[in-house]
Amino acid sequence: MIGLGLIGGSLLRAAAAVGRTAWGATASEMDATAAAADGHQASTDVDEALRQAAERDALVVVAVPLTGLDDVLRRVAEHAPNCLLTDVTSVKSAVLGSVRAFAPSARYVGGHPMAGTTESGWRAGNAALFGGTPYVVCVEEDTDLSAWAEVAQLAIDMGAHVVPLPASSHDEAVARISHLPHLLAAVLAAVGAQGGPLAMSLAAGSYTDGTRVAGTRAELVRAMTEGNRAALLPVLDEALGRLGATRGSLASTGGLAATINAGHEGAQTFAAARQATPAGVRVSLTAPDAREGLCALGERGGRITSIAGDTAIGEVH
Amino acid sequence: MIGLGLIGGSLLRAAAAVGRTAWGATASEMDATAAAADGHQASTDVDEALRQAAERDALVVVAVPLTGLDDVLRRVAEHAPNCLLTDVTSVKSAVLGSVRAFAPSARYVGGHPMAGTTESGWRAGNAALFGGTPYVVCVEEDTDLSAWAEVAQLAIDMGAHVVPLPASSHDEAVARISHLPHLLAAVLAAVGAQGGPLAMSLAAGSYTDGTRVAGTRAELVRAMTEGNRAALLPVLDEALGRLGATRGSLASTGGLAATINAGHEGAQTFAAARQATPAGVRVSLTAPDAREGLCALGERGGRITSIAGDTAIGEVH
Repeated sequence: MIGLGLIGGSLLRAAAAVGRTAWGATASEMDATAAAADGHQASTDVDEALRQAAERDALVVVAVPLTGLDDVLRRVAEHAPNCLLTDVTSVKSAVLGSVRAFAPSARYVGGHPMAGTTESGWRAGNAALFGGTPYVVCVEEDTDLSAWAEVAQLAIDMGAHVVPLPASSHDEAVARISHLPHLLAAVLAAVGAQGGPLAMSLAAGSYTDGTRVAGTRAELVRAMTEGNRAALLPVLDEALGRLGATRGSLASTGGLAATINAGHEGAQTFAAARQATPAGVRVSLTAPDAREGLCALGERGGRITSIAGDTAIGEVH
Repeated sequence: MIGLGLIGGSLLRAAAAVGRTAWGATASEMDATAAAADGHQASTDVDEALRQAAERDALVVVAVPLTGLDDVLRRVAEHAPNCLLTDVTSVKSAVLGSVRAFAPSARYVGGHPMAGTTESGWRAGNAALFGGTPYVVCVEEDTDLSAWAEVAQLAIDMGAHVVPLPASSHDEAVARISHLPHLLAAVLAAVGAQGGPLAMSLAAGSYTDGTRVAGTRAELVRAMTEGNRAALLPVLDEALGRLGATRGSLASTGGLAATINAGHEGAQTFAAARQATPAGVRVSLTAPDAREGLCALGERGGRITSIAGDTAIGEVH
C-alpha cells in the first residue's frame, strides 16, 4: 500500500483484517507513525516497500492523491517494474495515461472505491469503509483478466462489490454523479453566503443537503474535477443548458414545470434503481468475449459480487 | 386553521397541545376525516369555520397551497372580513398582494414556518414539526404590532423562534437558500439520470444529498419557485454566472480553484453562523421605531424567542 491516508489506510486495515499479508509506505511521517502504532508494518520508505513487493510478487496499491501519482509511478518503474499494480484515484483515464507513460511494464488494473468521507488521513480510516459500496475495477481492451480478477478479489475481500468498466465510462459517470454534484454544491454555497447572516439564519434542509460536500477539502475536489476535465466539460454543459433553460422559462412564461418535472423523474429513476430486485449473472473470464461481457454488465448498472475460479458471479437489475 | 395538510395539520395539533382552542376546515375530505378521527374539531366546511372565527375573534391561519389561496381569501372577506389573519406560504410578497386584493380589511401578518418534509397531508404532520425551526413573521410599514405579536406568540408556542422580516427580504433570502437549492437539485437529478443505469449504480453521498429535495412533490416546488419569480430571477442569474465561469475556467485554463474555494468559504460561513454564540436583544413593540428595530434584527440573522408584555426578547450573533 503506497499512501496511508483515508483510503490507503482503510485498505491496509481491511486487508490485514481478512488475513492478507500487507505492508505500507507513505510520504507522511504522521500517517506512517500512526499506522505503525496501530500494529501495521508501515514506514516512510516507499522505495523499500516497492522492492519488497517486487520480491514477493505482491499487488501494489497506489493510494496517493492524483498530484503525487507520477512520482510514485516512476518509483514503481524503478523498483517493481513488472508488478501487479492498481490505484484508488477518482479519475481513471488520466491515471491510465500516466501509467502508460511512467510505469509501462506494470500489469496495471485501475480501481476506484466509491467510498469516502469529508475527512482525511490515517486516523480517519477504518476497515469497514468499503462495506456495501461500489468499487470500479477497470477493464480496457488490453487488460489481463487474471490480473483483473486479483484486483477484483481484493475489492470483494474489502466488502465492496465490483463494477467492471472501461476508464472512459467510469470517468463519464463520475462526472455526472460525483464531480458535477461537487461543483453545484460549491456554486450553491457561494450564492447562499452572498445572502449574508439573514440567508444563513433561514437555511434549512434543502440548503444543508445541497451544500454538504462543499465542506470537503478544496485540494481533493480540485484534484478530482480538474483531473477529469474531458469528461466533466460536456456534463457541465448539460447542467448549464438545463439551468439556462430554467432561467429563460422563468423570465418568459414564468413556468418551471419542465425543469421540476424532469428533476422529479430523475429522482424517481434513482429511487427505482435502488429498489429493483436484481437477477444473477455469470461471466466466464476465459471466454473470448469476457472483457466485453464484463463491461456490458457494468454499463447496465450491474456488479460482480464474487469470483469462483475463472467465473465472475454477480447481479444486474 | 384553513387547510389541514402537513403544515396546517401540524399547527392544529401543536396549538391543541399547548391548550389553545383550535378548529380546522379543509377542502380535503380525507384530511378532515383523519383530523376528526384524531379528536380534533375538523370539517370540510370552510365558510362555517370562518364564521366561527369571526364570532370568537380568533386568529385565522390559512394553510392551503398558493394555488388555492385566492379562493380562501375571498371566503375570508365574506365570512370573517376583519379577522386577524396569517398564512404559512413559502412566498410572502405574492400573498401580501393577494390579501390586499381579496381580503383588504383583514388584519394580516404574513408567516412562513421554515419546516417541512418531502411528505404531505394530515397523516404526515406532527405537533413537534416546528420545534427549533425559524418561523418568519412579516413586518411591513403598515403592520399592526399587536397583531404581529399575536402571530409571533403562536409561532413561539409551536416551539419555533421568530424571524421578523419584510416580505421582500424573506423572498430574497428563501430564493437563495430554498428555491435555488430545489432547482439545482432538479437539474442534478435530470443530468444524473441521463447517465443511465451505470450512473445510478455508482451514485453515492454527493449525488444522494444533492438530489434529495428533487423527490418533493412537483406541484409544491412549482408553487413556491414560480410564485417567487421576481426574487428568484436575480439569484438564478448569480448561480448561472458562477456555473458559466466555472465552465469557462475548466475549458480554458483547466483550473477550478475560484469556484471550489468560494464554495468552501461559503460552507465555512454557514458552519460558523450555526456555531457562533448569540447575544441577547430586546425590542420594545411600542417604540416609534419598533418596526425598523424588528426588521434590522431579522436582517442581521437574529430571532425573537419570547414576548413579554410589549417587549420582544431575542438574540443575534
